[in-house]
Amino acid sequence: MKKPENRPWKVLESEYVARKPWFTVRHERLELPDGTVVPDYYVSEYPAWVNIIARTRDGLFLLIDQYRHGLQETAYETPAGCVEPSDASMLAAAQRELLEETGFGGGEWRQLTVIAPNPATQNNLTYCFVATDVERLGDQTPDATEDLRLHLFTADEVLELLRTDSIRQALMAAPLWRYFYESRERPNK
Amino acid sequence: MKKPENRPWKVLESEYVARKPWFTVRHERLELPDGTVVPDYYVSEYPAWVNIIARTRDGLFLLIDQYRHGLQETAYETPAGCVEPSDASMLAAAQRELLEETGFGGGEWRQLTVIAPNPATQNNLTYCFVATDVERLGDQTPDATEDLRLHLFTADEVLELLRTDSIRQALMAAPLWRYFYESRERPNK
Repeated sequence: MKKPENRPWKVLESEYVARKPWFTVRHERLELPDGTVVPDYYVSEYPAWVNIIARTRDGLFLLIDQYRHGLQETAYETPAGCVEPSDASMLAAAQRELLEETGFGGGEWRQLTVIAPNPATQNNLTYCFVATDVERLGDQTPDATEDLRLHLFTADEVLELLRTDSIRQALMAAPLWRYFYESRERPNK
Repeated sequence: MKKPENRPWKVLESEYVARKPWFTVRHERLELPDGTVVPDYYVSEYPAWVNIIARTRDGLFLLIDQYRHGLQETAYETPAGCVEPSDASMLAAAQRELLEETGFGGGEWRQLTVIAPNPATQNNLTYCFVATDVERLGDQTPDATEDLRLHLFTADEVLELLRTDSIRQALMAAPLWRYFYESRERPNK
């Protein structure tokens, strides 16, 4: 299917409001194709992100829980993180993050989908992978500012968490629902 | 299923970096349960957002395309917007946004899912609705800073756009994949 015709807005002015880790923001003055001016537009810059749907040989899903200060809640998530300059590829970044956050690795990997956290306010994409037949290679080695716990859940449990909005980070819910749609996996009752 | 135990971080200091429309940001100094201090944490504050999977009596989906300056691309999306103080409810906000962006309304409405744009960096949620049997009530009445075009697509076309990451805003891909998973609708070939 054809992409829509691109109708870019013109950047009249652009300056960085801040250039810090996790807070790099441009303020811009923009002009629409019809001449309308948007005096204050903000774009947050981030590196690419990755996340992983990982299953063991027994078909169990690796989820973690961690406190998320934006919503001030501790919730279930798939393993995820930022791509580092030292990562050779998106896949390598995803494999590193899975190992750090869960201690699991190996298995078969494929890229499932590339989605956008927010095409209006952010400049980055999230690369979502599926890893099957992963196995425990060692201990979790999270960053000092990560306080996360590992859980192994059945497909039925993950579907129940999705259905009740208990996995509600959109960047994780989208690939999980896609995965279940495409695998045709249904609750086993 | 049980929620994970909440392990909140302590706010040691908090101040607003900016309080503007689309750019309200708090800078905070946080302390983890183990005493580790995060000196620079940023939370963006936004109102609640809504988006809508809308289908006509013929089963066609209402999508729009618009330029998104974060990714500098014009892409397909479901109708969506911010909840306004004058909206009586999330449903009312969704119905207003659908009417403004497409000129369509009426039909049967239900809330499908409530997801988070980013639980780490944002304080808001997105309420996702499904509207069936909507009909054309008038013209589109977008805001002055919206340049959007309306498209009517079949379920097969929407699935193809999802599959090729041509609908890739995560807040829209998640409810669409959930909708197709739960409806068991499959490409008609």
